[in-house]
Formats: sequence, structure tokens, C-alpha cells
Amino acid sequence: MTTAAPSSRVLAHPARDEIRLEGVLHALSDPLRLLVVRELARDDAGLSCSHFDLPVTKSTCTHHFRVLREAGVIQQGYRGTAKLNALRRADLDALFPGLLDSVLAAAALQADRSAHDG
Amino acid sequence: MTTAAPSSRVLAHPARDEIRLEGVLHALSDPLRLLVVRELARDDAGLSCSHFDLPVTKSTCTHHFRVLREAGVIQQGYRGTAKLNALRRADLDALFPGLLDSVLAAAALQADRSAHDG
Repeated sequence: MTTAAPSSRVLAHPARDEIRLEGVLHALSDPLRLLVVRELARDDAGLSCSHFDLPVTKSTCTHHFRVLREAGVIQQGYRGTAKLNALRRADLDALFPGLLDSVLAAAALQADRSAHDG
Repeated sequence: MTTAAPSSRVLAHPARDEIRLEGVLHALSDPLRLLVVRELARDDAGLSCSHFDLPVTKSTCTHHFRVLREAGVIQQGYRGTAKLNALRRADLDALFPGLLDSVLAAAALQADRSAHDG
């Protein structure tokens, strides 16, 4: 047998009605996680972890993705050996209309201001 | 002299351009702080700490208000011996248009859902 047991490949996600606003805001309150979410918002197909060229160790990166997944912000799943990440936009928009868009817009504005200041 | 030295009565606040989105989201990611912010949003005049009947010790309460102040979410100042708190709505709306309103709306929706579930 070369296939891993399903249990080792299934990642726990909160159901839509388990997603809490506080958890979502906490997940978005880290600069690196906010960067990841902005990137995912631009790509509906889902992105593999290796797509993100983040200035942290692999284990720190794994931690940040787990925080996003456990808060209900992203969906993580395997396609072959690659772990793909996608925003749970439908769930977030249904629960908290306009929230994700306003955070993304705020992050874009802040990034623009930083670019001009730099 | 019965008046305290100004330095002991002046509380540090970030200037508008020092307010960071990540800090604001972090400040709002706690259930108790979110409750305080919802209350402040309903009262433009500012509320004293004692207005909030929070299920925590005074020092925990002080901590939460400090997190909100240092993130730039609230303005704290003395009126006589009372410490008054007010939302920095103008600053937040200027920096991150729509963000505060969408968080407040999301918090209201979540509270409604919790009330119906209970």
C-alpha cells in the first residue's frame, strides 16, 4: 500500500455556522496571513503552499495556514501531493456580508500608502 | 496643588497615520472588545469605563481598553476623574472606508444568530 490512510489526509474545517467573527478577525490580524488572503482573493482556482514566497520557515508558514483554515477563512485540500488553498468567500460573504471585501480594500489602501511613503 | 501632573493624565494614542489595519483587526478580534466597540458605536458622546458592566476584573477591563486605544480604535481621555472612551470613527473611516461599519454589521448579525440559536 502506498496510499496514505484517508484520515491523515483530511484536514479539519469548521462548518459555516461554526465560523466566528472574532476568529476571522484574529486570523486576518497578522501581516503575513493578510498577505496570503489578498493573494488568494486574486486567484479563484486555489494556490499551493509553495506558490507563496514567504519570508518565514516552512513550519511557521504551515502554522499561519492552519490558523486561517481553523478560523474558516480558507479551505485547504490535497490535489495529488499538493496542498491547495482557497478563500471561503461564499461562506464569509454569506455570514458577514461585505466584511471580506472591506478588509481586502483596507489592506490594499494600506499597502498603497506604505509604497508611497517608502 | 490638587491637580495631577499632566504627564500622568495624558494617555498615548497613535496618530492617524500610525494606525495599522492588522492592529485594528487584532483589537476587534476579542469578544469583549468587540462588545465594547459596539456599545461605543451607539453613543457618540463617549462612555466612561464604569458604564460597561463587563464580566471581568477591573485590571482585565483596563487591559482591553488599552489594547483598543493603542490600536487606534478608541480615544480615551479624562473628564474630571472619569475616563471617557469614544470610537475614533473619523480616523478609521478615513483610513479604511467601510471597514468599521462592516465589522459592526457582522457583529450584529452574529449576535442575532446566537440569540436565535439560544
